Amino acid sequence: MLYPNALTIQKVMTTRNNTEGWRESQPQALIQTSVGNLLTSRVTCSRSGKEKNFYRFDFPAWVNIVALTPEQKILMIRQYRFGSGKMEWEIPGGAVEDGEQPLAAGLRELLEETGYEGENGRIIGSVCPNPALQNNSCYTVLVENVQRISPQNLDEMEDISVEPMAIDEVMNMVKQGTLTHGLVLNGLLFYFMTHRPDIFF
Amino acid sequence: MLYPNALTIQKVMTTRNNTEGWRESQPQALIQTSVGNLLTSRVTCSRSGKEKNFYRFDFPAWVNIVALTPEQKILMIRQYRFGSGKMEWEIPGGAVEDGEQPLAAGLRELLEETGYEGENGRIIGSVCPNPALQNNSCYTVLVENVQRISPQNLDEMEDISVEPMAIDEVMNMVKQGTLTHGLVLNGLLFYFMTHRPDIFF
Repeated sequence: MLYPNALTIQKVMTTRNNTEGWRESQPQALIQTSVGNLLTSRVTCSRSGKEKNFYRFDFPAWVNIVALTPEQKILMIRQYRFGSGKMEWEIPGGAVEDGEQPLAAGLRELLEETGYEGENGRIIGSVCPNPALQNNSCYTVLVENVQRISPQNLDEMEDISVEPMAIDEVMNMVKQGTLTHGLVLNGLLFYFMTHRPDIFF
Repeated sequence: MLYPNALTIQKVMTTRNNTEGWRESQPQALIQTSVGNLLTSRVTCSRSGKEKNFYRFDFPAWVNIVALTPEQKILMIRQYRFGSGKMEWEIPGGAVEDGEQPLAAGLRELLEETGYEGENGRIIGSVCPNPALQNNSCYTVLVENVQRISPQNLDEMEDISVEPMAIDEVMNMVKQGTLTHGLVLNGLLFYFMTHRPDIFF
């Protein structure tokens, strides 16, 4: 849908608490898309008292999955992305559905996009992808000992190839600029933090 | 501005190369905001041949800055963010202006937001914040030996506090979920990769 649907947008137009003197007017729905809704509010700056229209995208929660094979390879996927207009190297991921828990969403997306499932699935971190412009979280799920148990079950607008890669190969793609997806790098950081915490402290 | 301005939006509506069988119709401008423009195209899936409207935000390039004091503390900032509706811990950052280079933008934003400048400014990495939904890059600039040389020079809609923090303190905020900004975590990852590469290989 291209245009606002009052009922759907209304649920996200809740008034929020003011924060350290910042004030927001009731948000106005600008546009609704299949991926999220764009809102605007008149915002008053705590320091200057000036006002301006600020913009926010209300997206559902997102999830991405670090899936490790028994050989400690990471399941990488490659797919076309409309934002960048390119084929992108990523880890599996997607949107959390209404009423779904992020962990369940991660296991579902892993199975749908790759045909793999595994053990010990758990959330190892979450980010707000961009607190300036959006309000959702992206959770990273870690799954171990993944094995291919079924064919992929792709959406009609998906075409995804799957490749297990050693962590060195993945990090080489980061160094070389072949893997530039910010949310994927967040997932890899959480993997390092939880599995090699000695690195960081 | 809330509504499309044909001249401004036209410049981003370039036709892109098709990628491995994916086809995009000429993008249609949906809405223009002060932070970016929302476009849509009819996209044809390479695998299924099905079509759907896909959405893309054309944003300017962004930049964030890892600024190290002589004591190896990182300059952290704290500010209200309309997306999340909260005060957020971040590193300095902002949008690259027309005709500006990302490195220059990083040094400018650092000085404006904190009053600090330093030495050896250089780009240490970049991400596409979300290749599914946007086409821009966020560059991370590293600056060393930063010192406060002037007062802040804030926009009328900014109110920013500045605090140098030891890297352990910063990583504790990540572990505790106090610092959740995905692009800030990308900048920290690039700092680790360039300054402690032994960690990753």
